Amino acid sequence: MRYHKIPDETIRRLPVYLRGLLFLLEEGRQSISSRDFADFVSVNPWQIRKDFSYFGEFGTRGVGYDIKKLSKQIYKILKLDVVHKAALVGVGNLGLAVLAYPGFGTYNFDIVAAFDTDRKKIGKKIKDVTVEDISKIRALKRKKIDLGIIAVPRKAAQEATDALVTAGVKGILNFSSCHIAVPKKIKVITIDIAMDLARLPYYMPAS
Amino acid sequence: MRYHKIPDETIRRLPVYLRGLLFLLEEGRQSISSRDFADFVSVNPWQIRKDFSYFGEFGTRGVGYDIKKLSKQIYKILKLDVVHKAALVGVGNLGLAVLAYPGFGTYNFDIVAAFDTDRKKIGKKIKDVTVEDISKIRALKRKKIDLGIIAVPRKAAQEATDALVTAGVKGILNFSSCHIAVPKKIKVITIDIAMDLARLPYYMPAS
Repeated sequence: MRYHKIPDETIRRLPVYLRGLLFLLEEGRQSISSRDFADFVSVNPWQIRKDFSYFGEFGTRGVGYDIKKLSKQIYKILKLDVVHKAALVGVGNLGLAVLAYPGFGTYNFDIVAAFDTDRKKIGKKIKDVTVEDISKIRALKRKKIDLGIIAVPRKAAQEATDALVTAGVKGILNFSSCHIAVPKKIKVITIDIAMDLARLPYYMPAS
Repeated sequence: MRYHKIPDETIRRLPVYLRGLLFLLEEGRQSISSRDFADFVSVNPWQIRKDFSYFGEFGTRGVGYDIKKLSKQIYKILKLDVVHKAALVGVGNLGLAVLAYPGFGTYNFDIVAAFDTDRKKIGKKIKDVTVEDISKIRALKRKKIDLGIIAVPRKAAQEATDALVTAGVKGILNFSSCHIAVPKKIKVITIDIAMDLARLPYYMPAS
């Protein structure tokens, strides 16, 4: 199955829809009207219909969305229907928070390796992961890890990136808030928490 | 100055443009063609022109964007041209990472208070902030803090939200990865790092 010309914005919204659907499932719901769903995820109904239209017909007129079926379809579209193994580089406060984060399992991510340069951290076991020396990162290739998570300070980010690329990852989640250079075939998503915060004041009423 | 019917997607992209501009400024650049800028921030040139068009004319034909001027304009549009004081609730690993995060200053955010329920943490000084007992949060009103950052576990998130709302914040950055209920006038931005990661596999080449 190949999808062409699907806007990045659509792919960005699909996990938002998925999270909403999973929440509804947790609440025991089985179906939802397209209008109620739109309200629930705070996206225009026409936008949702357009997003789904790239992948086929998902709702039934007069019935709405089958929550379980639709969530399964989104898992599949996003290639989240298989487990993705991830390696974490940097076990500082942010790295520890990432390791403890309960949400990764929801999307079939499994952090199976963690690396740091700090001797005090190396050898420690956090959850089910033992922190290894960064020099061991090359062994990742054997472990079939395809995702890397970078949680190191800015000045160490490119080095961590290069190590992950050499180790064969295909995607990187970058928390270092700086630009990292990668070969073209590797996808990077940079999370800059300050940048997310930067949208807030616009929406706040004046004092 | 009031802006009407500006899409949320535009407001979401403005900080991305701003970050790009600040990076170019750091590199000593003064102007950039609209095409080069589009490449740099990985957004279509027409999309950038459309986004800017809501606020007036920003580029000069044949010259491109004046980087310093444009960044100032975006600061103003996003209401980032004044300092926003923020309070952090939850000083676990994620909270500590937030306190240590160098990027907030860039957007004129100043975390001036931090709260926790853990007696071992209360009274500790981290950077310039002394961790206070959560019961002291009501005193925020006097401190003119308008932003709240929630970095507590899911089950404590709503309680932290209610406390921040009572204390008078107008916007909340929510890291708890769950839905929080707030009065309509308060803006919430939820950051779910697993959800950001959920976009990655779609873009990764098959094994």
